[in-house]
Amino acid sequence: MRLLLINPNTTEPMTQSMAAEAARFASAGTEITAVTAGFGPQYIANRVEAAIAGHAVLEALATHADGHDAAIVAAFGDPGLAAARELASIPVVGIAESAMLTAWMLGRRYSIVCLTSRLRTWYQECAREHGLDGRLASVRALDVPIPDITQAKDQFRAALMTECMRAIDDDEAEVIIFGGGPLAGLAREAAGDIPVPTLDGVSCAVRMAEALVALNPRKATRGSFARPGPKPAKGLSPALMRFFDGS
Amino acid sequence: MRLLLINPNTTEPMTQSMAAEAARFASAGTEITAVTAGFGPQYIANRVEAAIAGHAVLEALATHADGHDAAIVAAFGDPGLAAARELASIPVVGIAESAMLTAWMLGRRYSIVCLTSRLRTWYQECAREHGLDGRLASVRALDVPIPDITQAKDQFRAALMTECMRAIDDDEAEVIIFGGGPLAGLAREAAGDIPVPTLDGVSCAVRMAEALVALNPRKATRGSFARPGPKPAKGLSPALMRFFDGS
Amino acid sequence: MRLLLINPNTTEPMTQSMAAEAARFASAGTEITAVTAGFGPQYIANRVEAAIAGHAVLEALATHADGHDAAIVAAFGDPGLAAARELASIPVVGIAESAMLTAWMLGRRYSIVCLTSRLRTWYQECAREHGLDGRLASVRALDVPIPDITQAKDQFRAALMTECMRAIDDDEAEVIIFGGGPLAGLAREAAGDIPVPTLDGVSCAVRMAEALVALNPRKATRGSFARPGPKPAKGLSPALMRFFDGS
Amino acid sequence: MRLLLINPNTTEPMTQSMAAEAARFASAGTEITAVTAGFGPQYIANRVEAAIAGHAVLEALATHADGHDAAIVAAFGDPGLAAARELASIPVVGIAESAMLTAWMLGRRYSIVCLTSRLRTWYQECAREHGLDGRLASVRALDVPIPDITQAKDQFRAALMTECMRAIDDDEAEVIIFGGGPLAGLAREAAGDIPVPTLDGVSCAVRMAEALVALNPRKATRGSFARPGPKPAKGLSPALMRFFDGS
Amino acid sequence: MRLLLINPNTTEPMTQSMAAEAARFASAGTEITAVTAGFGPQYIANRVEAAIAGHAVLEALATHADGHDAAIVAAFGDPGLAAARELASIPVVGIAESAMLTAWMLGRRYSIVCLTSRLRTWYQECAREHGLDGRLASVRALDVPIPDITQAKDQFRAALMTECMRAIDDDEAEVIIFGGGPLAGLAREAAGDIPVPTLDGVSCAVRMAEALVALNPRKATRGSFARPGPKPAKGLSPALMRFFDGS
Amino acid sequence: MRLLLINPNTTEPMTQSMAAEAARFASAGTEITAVTAGFGPQYIANRVEAAIAGHAVLEALATHADGHDAAIVAAFGDPGLAAARELASIPVVGIAESAMLTAWMLGRRYSIVCLTSRLRTWYQECAREHGLDGRLASVRALDVPIPDITQAKDQFRAALMTECMRAIDDDEAEVIIFGGGPLAGLAREAAGDIPVPTLDGVSCAVRMAEALVALNPRKATRGSFARPGPKPAKGLSPALMRFFDGS
Repeated sequence: MRLLLINPNTTEPMTQSMAAEAARFASAGTEITAVTAGFGPQYIANRVEAAIAGHAVLEALATHADGHDAAIVAAFGDPGLAAARELASIPVVGIAESAMLTAWMLGRRYSIVCLTSRLRTWYQECAREHGLDGRLASVRALDVPIPDITQAKDQFRAALMTECMRAIDDDEAEVIIFGGGPLAGLAREAAGDIPVPTLDGVSCAVRMAEALVALNPRKATRGSFARPGPKPAKGLSPALMRFFDGS
Repeated sequence: MRLLLINPNTTEPMTQSMAAEAARFASAGTEITAVTAGFGPQYIANRVEAAIAGHAVLEALATHADGHDAAIVAAFGDPGLAAARELASIPVVGIAESAMLTAWMLGRRYSIVCLTSRLRTWYQECAREHGLDGRLASVRALDVPIPDITQAKDQFRAALMTECMRAIDDDEAEVIIFGGGPLAGLAREAAGDIPVPTLDGVSCAVRMAEALVALNPRKATRGSFARPGPKPAKGLSPALMRFFDGS
Repeated sequence: MRLLLINPNTTEPMTQSMAAEAARFASAGTEITAVTAGFGPQYIANRVEAAIAGHAVLEALATHADGHDAAIVAAFGDPGLAAARELASIPVVGIAESAMLTAWMLGRRYSIVCLTSRLRTWYQECAREHGLDGRLASVRALDVPIPDITQAKDQFRAALMTECMRAIDDDEAEVIIFGGGPLAGLAREAAGDIPVPTLDGVSCAVRMAEALVALNPRKATRGSFARPGPKPAKGLSPALMRFFDGS
Repeated sequence: MRLLLINPNTTEPMTQSMAAEAARFASAGTEITAVTAGFGPQYIANRVEAAIAGHAVLEALATHADGHDAAIVAAFGDPGLAAARELASIPVVGIAESAMLTAWMLGRRYSIVCLTSRLRTWYQECAREHGLDGRLASVRALDVPIPDITQAKDQFRAALMTECMRAIDDDEAEVIIFGGGPLAGLAREAAGDIPVPTLDGVSCAVRMAEALVALNPRKATRGSFARPGPKPAKGLSPALMRFFDGS
Repeated sequence: MRLLLINPNTTEPMTQSMAAEAARFASAGTEITAVTAGFGPQYIANRVEAAIAGHAVLEALATHADGHDAAIVAAFGDPGLAAARELASIPVVGIAESAMLTAWMLGRRYSIVCLTSRLRTWYQECAREHGLDGRLASVRALDVPIPDITQAKDQFRAALMTECMRAIDDDEAEVIIFGGGPLAGLAREAAGDIPVPTLDGVSCAVRMAEALVALNPRKATRGSFARPGPKPAKGLSPALMRFFDGS
Repeated sequence: MRLLLINPNTTEPMTQSMAAEAARFASAGTEITAVTAGFGPQYIANRVEAAIAGHAVLEALATHADGHDAAIVAAFGDPGLAAARELASIPVVGIAESAMLTAWMLGRRYSIVCLTSRLRTWYQECAREHGLDGRLASVRALDVPIPDITQAKDQFRAALMTECMRAIDDDEAEVIIFGGGPLAGLAREAAGDIPVPTLDGVSCAVRMAEALVALNPRKATRGSFARPGPKPAKGLSPALMRFFDGS
């Protein structure tokens, strides 16, 4: 089985670290191709950046999907996820949605712990857009400047653990999701310190993608996820133009 | 990996047919033990029967969980699921919840197609109890007498297909879930006839259970799914009495 | 008029204390029969215990309903209430639902004050299951060990009053419900100390049951509360087996 | 026990017919005083009329409450109910709210059947305002001219029965409420023709008022239902001016 | 364009101050007529007073609407707004609704800051009644005695600013609405002190009324806002009697 | 006042026709600049196209906003609206949101009538994303092939009128919104044929934009609509790169 992991951020090292975490949780026989968005911000943290990333995800998917069995949109917040599902002929999962769905099976309410308050808003809107905010206890964010996003997981670990415990004590969280690609791996590393299940998006997404491939549902030919027909378009990358041409 | 499939109904052939469907979707290396509820009705179809089955599921779980990595409550409607999660030290999934969570990744709204209108009510309440009714387009039931529940899937196939198409045309369903153990396998068999993804609960539950085992979340020691402490009880089976004794 | 009060807990003294409170609020001419669940935990406080109690309530109802005009499920959390309504040919009320419906007529938001945080979760889920959580301001629980549940009402009275005032001051509660059989009577005793209406479940349930008997609605023969037809079953008590036999 | 029944409409014969229905369902020892609004339309059917009636209810209550144990606002739609609760030192119930709360104990979803489509809107808004629309299956209205509102119950009985059956068949209603004072008595008369419980507002309100009197909750001195302090006002009736004077 | 501003309170100076604020935001060519309710309390702060004001608004509208292009109900809480829309042949806006709709275009969540906790309840219920509470972050009220309502805006300015900042910091408010006619003008005066957009109702209502006049939608002749037909009524003012006469 | 109208579609004639409709409803003294998206599909009708358009709107806004007082995103569905509000220092409105907010002031429920069923889904999701779906009665779509989108308004006028009447008769719509730029003008032209108010997005948006300019709310410096700080980005147009550079 081949999974395409698309990093909607344009930071290549983040792609590599998410790919490593994905590989750790993949079944034997699952191969992961990791690609980085072709344009956009280093690290998505607000609606402007998420809107641009939505386009970038589609372009990456149109360019790289061939030969894969499923794709993963690997920025918490799931930019462009629904559009990607419409575009692709293979299943597509998002790392936020996958973690939320997994949390559903492990507790009554979940909290998301993340790095900045701007992300908090995005993640709240993401949960609501997915129709999965009914059990969202809180999104808790550090409110400190993050000098180096790739070091944040280790540098702010104590503060992140404090937010987890507040989510449990004050918000009645029964599952903790670490939100944001730069925190990939923390759920695993912190499991011993937190008295409820901890999840991150990448590992959940790998397993959800594998499940969909195994279940092998057909691509819809009716409804809003059927592949749209050809239509004139302009100014897009060759791969997306091929999609609009219907080829 | 060893999965325990618990049939909350007391009909042994239904257990066997669900076990066969489960095996078909399990990963290589996954072994399935299938057990049948020790007491209760032949086939659960209303709240009285579901309430009794909730107890029966706990008893089966307390009796058989040892040596398994995860358990599946295998009656659509998921009787006793949340209680089972509280009782068990291993992950527990339900076949209804698993199918609904899978549907979340495949379309915007899902419909459940089932055999009787009494089941319709139960499944509506199940979706609501799981907090997953926000995308439930409809539950569509045949309203005909079912002479033999084990033959129903084949005998009423045309009528079931008609309800699927009505769900798509009239209710804007974009995913179809076949509800009820006796329909296990129909999602697979009917995929070619229905223009949107079709799911059934058993196959989804196997893959969700495998995903949870792989993700290996810790058992909560805080919150409402922590294992309750010992407490005096009476009149229960030996396995459940051991649970209340804290042994 | 004869009311059957079913204590889903297996603690006989609690049955007697609830029966006494019930008698205090019953109309002249109303007679109360109080019975105790035949199996299950001493005092229900989580989903495992509530699931078992759901079965125990059905068994008690099938055994004792004859000759009564209505029945009361007398554990806050209302285990098995909806199933009991389906089973019985007489009206059935729950003490939690009755208190919530009464609160609806007395204020804009209500809080439930109870003994333990595990009960808090159960009561939240109960309010939601009844569709009556829209005005639930909070469930406030003492978080202290309860050495003797039958003495808790008096022993922790000061702490319970503090939680009531917090519910009013911080959660905008306009009605207080004391949750849990062991607190029966406290609403009456504490009325002078709390500046908003106080309720407990048993007294409300007695009056709701009487109201239903007086209104004399017919038993449904359509819909999900019609009495189910006979069906094979196994392993159940004689009274429940008679129900499944349709006799 | 003395109950004050306030008809917010200015039609005296309707007051008498509702009083008769109320008396039929009152306990022995309950005495009913029935009064008619001093100003406003003959029969309330829209928001303009309901807004005027809200004022008329307060005036009637301020004038007549003395010497009564509870009051009933007896127009389905409950004009001025929440304000009346704030004004009065005795419990106040509405006939719509009482019927909806009673329906909660009898089935999963209820429908209201009424005479005109303008009432339908009002009743929908009433259910929503009370926070009780979560189980409202439908409001079904005859769409015919009503020549004489006092004869409508008998004249349109067949058409009303047809709407009841549609509510059951098409809307999944499990309880039917007849909405509107002119239909008082129909729930009782039609019980044999409809396969689910039928309710009307007046009888339910009598029993809910009696229940509140028996439970004897204290009048709030905190929150939004505490009696407001004195305040200058102008142009109101003597009884309301006394309320604003704080006398 | 001529706008009719109706003050549902009976305090003339408040009418003048709202008229002045309205004039400040009106387009060139817009003329404002300001009238004061003919009966009711000095300053509406609870449901009793709002119910009376609903009637007073209708009377003022029936008396003064002629010759105007649109009307404004100028008490935050919008007493009688929906009824006024049904009565009038011109568009009618409320100052609370107008501010909430404007807030929708400026941020994700809004808070209302007001003078007393009794108003808080009213404004919460107003937002809910308008179906606009989904983005209501909080209603924050000073909890101090207000000796002179006409001076409150200046006298309590510091405390009001503190509540604004708490709404932003603690409730995630992104827009602040000052609720209550006596605070008219504060949104403008405080804009420099608050880091998010600030609104008050009067200015927003003027612009919303102008927008409706320009868009010139037809008066409904179907649905619940069509003008009701004539109907017997009694005890109303001459202008309202003319409405009921259909003249 | 200068308004920037951005057509997220890449069809220039549609831009011109929307600009003409906008001009018709603009106040004297309001000048409208109309620009067309630089890349993307001819006419947006699904999530893939809306995601690309979100990026295109940001690029157009970054390029053309200077010198304008407010901007209008002029595709029903409002692609990129929230992101545009975050990016811009001037108010930004969407034509769908503006029409929905206007409908709020004119009736209890609104329906959207549009050309294709794919648009129906998008508009449903748009209403939900805006938190304005609580009063959405239905989205009704013609289900016919549209040979020439620019002629559709006239060619399918009869069918569109039929859908309007169905929305009123069957869905209880009290306001009709015509959805989609190609229908601009129809609300005005059809007003005489439809018994409830009719709206289109462009005219409403012009007036909402003017209202915001007049109210002159400050740009947030806190919360999720504050302008984000500079951040490295790549592969974007010069105007967007300037935004990321913070210049």
